[in-house]
Amino acid sequence: MSGLRIGVLVAVCAAFSLAIVLPAARPTPQSAPQAPAPLANDPKLLEDLVYANRILYQQDVLDGFGHVSARSDKDPSHFLMSRSMAPGLVTSNDIMEFDSDGEPVDARGRNAYVERYIHAAIYRVRPDVKAIVHSHSPDIIPFSVTGTILRPIYHVSAFLGAGAPIFEIRDTDRSTDMLIRNNKLGDALAKSLGDRAVVLMRGHGYVAVGYSIPAAVYCAIYTQINARVQAEAMKLGPVNFLSAEEIPKAQAGSEAVLGRSWELWKSRVGKIE
Amino acid sequence: MSGLRIGVLVAVCAAFSLAIVLPAARPTPQSAPQAPAPLANDPKLLEDLVYANRILYQQDVLDGFGHVSARSDKDPSHFLMSRSMAPGLVTSNDIMEFDSDGEPVDARGRNAYVERYIHAAIYRVRPDVKAIVHSHSPDIIPFSVTGTILRPIYHVSAFLGAGAPIFEIRDTDRSTDMLIRNNKLGDALAKSLGDRAVVLMRGHGYVAVGYSIPAAVYCAIYTQINARVQAEAMKLGPVNFLSAEEIPKAQAGSEAVLGRSWELWKSRVGKIE
Amino acid sequence: MSGLRIGVLVAVCAAFSLAIVLPAARPTPQSAPQAPAPLANDPKLLEDLVYANRILYQQDVLDGFGHVSARSDKDPSHFLMSRSMAPGLVTSNDIMEFDSDGEPVDARGRNAYVERYIHAAIYRVRPDVKAIVHSHSPDIIPFSVTGTILRPIYHVSAFLGAGAPIFEIRDTDRSTDMLIRNNKLGDALAKSLGDRAVVLMRGHGYVAVGYSIPAAVYCAIYTQINARVQAEAMKLGPVNFLSAEEIPKAQAGSEAVLGRSWELWKSRVGKIE
Amino acid sequence: MSGLRIGVLVAVCAAFSLAIVLPAARPTPQSAPQAPAPLANDPKLLEDLVYANRILYQQDVLDGFGHVSARSDKDPSHFLMSRSMAPGLVTSNDIMEFDSDGEPVDARGRNAYVERYIHAAIYRVRPDVKAIVHSHSPDIIPFSVTGTILRPIYHVSAFLGAGAPIFEIRDTDRSTDMLIRNNKLGDALAKSLGDRAVVLMRGHGYVAVGYSIPAAVYCAIYTQINARVQAEAMKLGPVNFLSAEEIPKAQAGSEAVLGRSWELWKSRVGKIE
Repeated sequence: MSGLRIGVLVAVCAAFSLAIVLPAARPTPQSAPQAPAPLANDPKLLEDLVYANRILYQQDVLDGFGHVSARSDKDPSHFLMSRSMAPGLVTSNDIMEFDSDGEPVDARGRNAYVERYIHAAIYRVRPDVKAIVHSHSPDIIPFSVTGTILRPIYHVSAFLGAGAPIFEIRDTDRSTDMLIRNNKLGDALAKSLGDRAVVLMRGHGYVAVGYSIPAAVYCAIYTQINARVQAEAMKLGPVNFLSAEEIPKAQAGSEAVLGRSWELWKSRVGKIE
Repeated sequence: MSGLRIGVLVAVCAAFSLAIVLPAARPTPQSAPQAPAPLANDPKLLEDLVYANRILYQQDVLDGFGHVSARSDKDPSHFLMSRSMAPGLVTSNDIMEFDSDGEPVDARGRNAYVERYIHAAIYRVRPDVKAIVHSHSPDIIPFSVTGTILRPIYHVSAFLGAGAPIFEIRDTDRSTDMLIRNNKLGDALAKSLGDRAVVLMRGHGYVAVGYSIPAAVYCAIYTQINARVQAEAMKLGPVNFLSAEEIPKAQAGSEAVLGRSWELWKSRVGKIE
Repeated sequence: MSGLRIGVLVAVCAAFSLAIVLPAARPTPQSAPQAPAPLANDPKLLEDLVYANRILYQQDVLDGFGHVSARSDKDPSHFLMSRSMAPGLVTSNDIMEFDSDGEPVDARGRNAYVERYIHAAIYRVRPDVKAIVHSHSPDIIPFSVTGTILRPIYHVSAFLGAGAPIFEIRDTDRSTDMLIRNNKLGDALAKSLGDRAVVLMRGHGYVAVGYSIPAAVYCAIYTQINARVQAEAMKLGPVNFLSAEEIPKAQAGSEAVLGRSWELWKSRVGKIE
Repeated sequence: MSGLRIGVLVAVCAAFSLAIVLPAARPTPQSAPQAPAPLANDPKLLEDLVYANRILYQQDVLDGFGHVSARSDKDPSHFLMSRSMAPGLVTSNDIMEFDSDGEPVDARGRNAYVERYIHAAIYRVRPDVKAIVHSHSPDIIPFSVTGTILRPIYHVSAFLGAGAPIFEIRDTDRSTDMLIRNNKLGDALAKSLGDRAVVLMRGHGYVAVGYSIPAAVYCAIYTQINARVQAEAMKLGPVNFLSAEEIPKAQAGSEAVLGRSWELWKSRVGKIE
């Protein structure tokens, strides 16, 4: 507790009270989606993206917040993602297309996630990435705010490599609402990610990427489990992590069988519409 | 453990044994509600209040104990709350109206929650508050009894501002059963809350308020999650909390999208009667 | 970890291997219950006892092991308890009657729980006790093996009084299988419990008693929750427990409304046969 | 945290990016099983093996990974195990037969688990063992990477004896992907297990064995629970483990009633096909 830095007691809760007179601080009504133009993408890709939304909710990676996207198969500079809604409720009708700047191609009155620039920025500089997950997982936050490096504690999370970097938004802009609201912040985050699979975001969450939708979902889920395990292990004593030699080999081994988990996760979600 | 203060070993359990001869200590039979007068409030408000009861149970904020209320739309000095029962079982027929002193307007033999004075006292002094949650969440208790300040560790709980105050009932009355059984204790609690969104209660629980039912439910749920995350983070090392600049901005950002969570939580509860 | 006492590495696992040739160490086949004599007890008491079994499983107090009993309304020196089976599967046909020595009145080939002497011994010396729960809850074990006193950290578990005693079976018999296999061990346990509501058993579990089935179930459930909360709180810092003045008052307050929890728990179990 | 050894920051994540061009690192498509030859084993054994798969998933011992096998009743040098798939989805059609070298007797295009050599090696040297579970349980990993010995903290996990050994794969091969991919590694693991019931695997998981399918499942489940309890207890203070005298007696006592748990676990899984 000695490390706790108690900030100045500004009356921030006044802002809360003020909310009743500030329309901007009210919850935005869920815009009723107009009959959307059917997307011309591979139906399997769209189905996998809907499953990814449901799986990540079912596996406690996402709650009412967070999102998952996939690179478009028709135009690789574009990506697909749900309109702004809880991922656990997403259906194929909710998927929208976004351009390389993160702007909706055909919004039709539907709201887009504010933080779509996370996805746009990473797709711009990582041609190998085909899918991206952004989550506020409570298991990850402790690592993002204490500087403890998240490292692969067992073979199934070897994709964490030498450790996940931590993105500090204050390094780009000292006065934000913590959200990646524009391409400048998106680019800074993508730079922090580099060529890795996972980047943590201080006081916010993390991003996991993959060479396919199942691969990104796999990374997102096992990043979370690794965090739980590592936090618990560190309370028992010094941790013997995977070695630099073991990491790339274990990563290849896990990737070879991740379809096994994907089938299981889909079965837990059940039939989707 | 060095901090443990082992109290005098008074034979308090004798009270337990005595319970068999003390009718007052027996469980009160659930009074069968008489056909209640239908409330003339906005049906949407009543529906949201029933959903709030069910959601808070489904999200583990409430168990057999705790309650949630809403300010009346017909008479803003009055409020609406269930009769004394487990929130997870509440239906619209169980909602009662209370006056500004916390007394039932038309009890019809129904029992009211003993701690209704929590609600009455806050509605009296916080015109901005439209809904109130009181919970005994096990995740919150550790913060209430150790003096560790609960602070926003990530953007979604920015409403915690500079930290939740802790209400010490002994400061008002050294010899209570811990419950807010009257308006004097209610007023002291409301004063401790001040213009904030959340107040912890030592050895008891917490209260979260909001400018709407969804907003109060949101605060109650994310206060609990923040507690889990903060407790875990503090075991890893010194915590880098949201800055004074980030807090009000992040709070506005979260409030703008809380409807997304509300829809998800309702879907988890399913159809209500 | 410095406190860990690593015992001599006796080849105890040989016993495991030997198990294949030692019939006594094999799982006893579940004896198919013969058409049992219908018990002449109050049907409400029998129904509550079945609910208690199911609730305690549903609330994670019991798993395949542990049991719950009720004092007989017909012969207060006798008690009622299921035959030896997982509590979560108990139906009214599985309830047996036991005499004051813990022996089945009419076994009809049904197996009784080995540790029925826990119940017999307590009913003999605690006329106020009408129901008893014995559990191996994982949340309780840490308190039973470290000497940390389990104390009421919030009002709903005030029945813990000045702290739950810890029964050390070695004080009675240094060489047991940890089970309360006879009345001598049962009497020692009952003495350790004294006039309290809860006693922990070192490396084994705990016993909670009540003036009714719902009261014993309530104590069993909130003892477990208190353990989780206290363990977490002690990691944050010195704990401010309920005061000696607050404990008896809070206990009476909670008991007055425990029917509220009982109705909720029953609803979670659903219809029983 | 002082104990954390931060490895060299090799660009292991490049391997991740490269995955898109390395077919070997792609998820293997689930081979559609051809109409398999019906196994001539005791139907009860096959049914129990399917239940074991489902139970271990339902009880959170296995997720998409891990496996469970049984020694063949027809040819005791052979064993039975599912094709490579998530255990939670296994049906009797998925069970394959393996010889004493761990090779499929009649694969018919079905993939076998890479780590089948764990099972083959143990069956070769432990005639008493009739069933084996291999799991990556997150609760076990902390013990495998910190050197903290997992010991029986209560009677139900007395089978842990004087403590579970930890298998260090680096002692046999310094440069692996952590998996038991051949009989040499399998033999080393079996040697580390010795005549015990459980062996942990550093940065990987554990293996639990039994004299029957229910016994192995029982050991696997209570090893996991013991890990949770021990980790929590060690945070409270020095732990008073079962004594060398209590261990073998408590083990026999638990084994005598494990059928009670088995029936419960089966009921949770429900009907299998």
